This record gives sequence, structure tokens and C-alpha cells, in this order.
Amino acid sequence: MISIVLFGTGNLATHLFKALLKAEKFKVVQVYNHKPESLDFFKEKTNTTTNLAEVVPADIYLVALKDDVIPVLAKKLIYKNALVVHTSGATPMSVYSNFEKFGVFYPLQTFSKNKTVDFKNIPICIEANNEVDLQILEQLALEITIKVYKISSEQRKVLHVAAVFVSNFVNYLYTEGQEICTRNKIPFEILHPLILETASKIIDLSPKEAQTGPAKRNDLEVINSHLELLNEEQQKIYKILTGSIQNLHGKEL
Amino acid sequence: MISIVLFGTGNLATHLFKALLKAEKFKVVQVYNHKPESLDFFKEKTNTTTNLAEVVPADIYLVALKDDVIPVLAKKLIYKNALVVHTSGATPMSVYSNFEKFGVFYPLQTFSKNKTVDFKNIPICIEANNEVDLQILEQLALEITIKVYKISSEQRKVLHVAAVFVSNFVNYLYTEGQEICTRNKIPFEILHPLILETASKIIDLSPKEAQTGPAKRNDLEVINSHLELLNEEQQKIYKILTGSIQNLHGKEL
Repeated sequence: MISIVLFGTGNLATHLFKALLKAEKFKVVQVYNHKPESLDFFKEKTNTTTNLAEVVPADIYLVALKDDVIPVLAKKLIYKNALVVHTSGATPMSVYSNFEKFGVFYPLQTFSKNKTVDFKNIPICIEANNEVDLQILEQLALEITIKVYKISSEQRKVLHVAAVFVSNFVNYLYTEGQEICTRNKIPFEILHPLILETASKIIDLSPKEAQTGPAKRNDLEVINSHLELLNEEQQKIYKILTGSIQNLHGKEL
Repeated sequence: MISIVLFGTGNLATHLFKALLKAEKFKVVQVYNHKPESLDFFKEKTNTTTNLAEVVPADIYLVALKDDVIPVLAKKLIYKNALVVHTSGATPMSVYSNFEKFGVFYPLQTFSKNKTVDFKNIPICIEANNEVDLQILEQLALEITIKVYKISSEQRKVLHVAAVFVSNFVNYLYTEGQEICTRNKIPFEILHPLILETASKIIDLSPKEAQTGPAKRNDLEVINSHLELLNEEQQKIYKILTGSIQNLHGKEL
């Protein structure tokens, strides 16, 4: 049995804890958070503490805290033989290099407060400063998901940029789509099935193959009539993305 | 029984035909297409023709052809008592105003050759030049989907622009995300679950609520480190969308 102390009680920490309840080789022996009330859910199921000095020795310290708190633990944890890993996409592995064994255990997903997530298909990106611990992290990840990737800190940074394009920026385009609908008194929900289909399409097709629309067809009449319906900000975005699509698909304005 | 002649044998026409096989009040009595081989699928199930002069009289002429062919039928169809409707998002209803009864029957979805689509949740936007025929189109749409919207030609144009943002442009951002991954030898599939979750999130949350990422947090350190990893085109897009998100969420560079 490999023992784990879990730091954090947020959405991700809670999901990880639940998934690990069923694990055979791993056991969460303690949960830490500085706020007592946040530990309520965990109290009945395992040992908990709000005091870093009371953290018990364990095989793995799994740190699911915010980016700015992650480095704080590097100094405050007394027991130095644990494998210390954090769950952040943006923080380098080296933040815990004052421990002998350290790594990263990064689930690549967008977590929102009011939306539950099915964990078993979430990719978990792992990294460790030695091969033995990388294998332990792989076993741990396989308790939670079927998708485990060995990813270096440099690759994780690249993944994070790509994620900004396909998630943060995409969500912003949804926001503009909603603004256009709302301003014209059209319910945005009409577009929900299109949004879901556009996303699920690229599981089967490459996004380049899946591209459709007036920019790809170089349909200038439609493009110009669209621009008339947009505000200044939207026109700017429409022009730049239309131009990019035309460049990629070999056509010019 | 309301009789229908279906014009077209493409993806949409085929989906519509299959859905209408189960209809109680409607029956496709003939399918037209100019290419004989495209009629193979339909031959065993109904009457077919490649000759416009052989088109039979019917209650509804349902035109699921490409935008540029739609107006051609306006002149060539001899039987003028049918309710003539097309399935296009971009063509105005008035293209068939030489008929007494005309309208639009527009399923709002992205159809790709190699990807089947579940029709029962696809919104169908209907429009007609009179109330009686609008109700007939509503009944027809309800045979296929539970989501029917009465949408004017003007609103349909707005919907089409919004669809460009949430589908065509979104797909282009997927393309850039894939390019970033491929260039750095990271499998794009790692991002698939994130893409699906980003899309399905906005069914429960408004996109404005769902926004996350460095632009929203105004995390300049991360933003600058991201820009270094991008090509010129991607930097342009990154900067403009980051600026827009910061404007919307009340922060400045």
C-alpha cells in the first residue's frame, strides 16, 4: 500500500480523493487544508488537519493547491523523504527540487465550480525527476484515468498554450456568438447543438479537414454582409480569423 | 397525408429522407437529383427522377440543394401550387417568391461527409410567407426534431454570423492548437477531452461565466511566455483575443 497525503480541498482535490477511494495500491491517509470548514467532506473518510506541522509522513505528498501556494510548501514540509508532486499546468517541476524525489501530476481539463466532470477520460500528464517515481505516478494516474502521458515541463508549457487556443479563446468566441444573438433577440441555445457537434467532429476528423464556412469558400458576398452586422471588436476578430482561414486554405481576399 | 418531393441527395437530404420514413402525416413521394448514381439509395424506397420535367405534383417541394442551384429551380418547376421551401441558412426566402406559397426549412448544424449526425436535437429554423404554411412546416419539423424555431430571413442572417464565430472560427482555433502540438511533437488527442468539456460547459453556464485562463486572470508573465512559443500568425490571434478577453472582463494590459 502506497500512502498519500492530499493537500487541497478544491474541485480537483475532491475529484482526485473520490477516485482514489476505489484504488487498490494507493490510500489517502490524510487531507490538509488551512480552512477547517473545507475539510468537512473528508473528515468521515480519512484523517484531516489544518496544521502543516501535523502532516504525517507518507510515500506521496500530492499538492492540489493554487499556483501561488505551491512553492510555500517546499519550505514548510518537514518530512523530506516523500515523493512531492503538484497538479499544476503552469508551475515547473523544479519548484520542489529541495526534495530528493519530486514530480508533476497534471490533469488537463477545465474545472468549473458548478459543473461536474467525468474523470476517467481526462488525460493526466506526469513527470518526475527519476524513472522509479515516474512509474509510481503512472500507476497512480492509471487508478483514475485510462489516459496517461509522460510530459516534460517544456512540453507541458506548450500544451498550456495550445489549451489557451482550443479552450480559453474558443470560449471567448462563444461569448461573442452569444452577444450577437442576444443583441438581435435570438435565443443562444439554438447554437448549442452546433457548438457540441463542432467540438465532437474533430475527434474523427482533423480540424483542417473539418473546416467549413464562408472564409474557407472565399465567399466575399457573405463575408461583407456579415461584417455589417458586427460591432467594431467583432469586426476586428472576424477579419483576422477570416484572413487566417483564407491563408491556410490557399485563397486570398 | 401530405406529399413531398425532395430535391437533392446529399448528406442533409439523405438525413431528412431517413427521418421522414417514420413520419405519419408526411410522405416523400419522389426524390430528384441530376446524377442518376446519387439516387441509388432512394430507388428502392420511393420514386426517383433525374429529369425536372418529370417531377410530380406534390404538397411540398423540399429543396436540399447547394445555394447556387436553389434559384435555378424557381424557373424550372412547372407545378406552381406546391409549397416550395429550401434548407439554406444563407439564401433568403424570397428566392421562391414566384410561387404562391414559399418558405425556408433550415436545420442549423454542420454536416461533414464522414461524420453522421443525430437529427433529433438539431434545431430547425422555419419561415413561410403565410401562417397556414408556417404551421405545416412546424409539423414537418416536429417529425424530425424536438427543437423548432420560427426565424425570419433577417434573424437567420444574424444566426449565420453567430454560427461563423462559434463553429467556423472555433474550428480554426482547433487547427492552430493542433499546429502548436504537432510542431512540438505532442499528440493533439491530449486536448480532445478539454475541447469537448469546453463546449459542453456552456450548456450549463453562460460563456462569460465559464471564461478561464491567463487573459482573464491578467497573468502577464504567462501571457508573455506563451507568445514566445507561437508563430507570427498565432501571435497576432493570441494578442487580439487576449485583449478582447481583458476588455470584457474589465482588465487592461
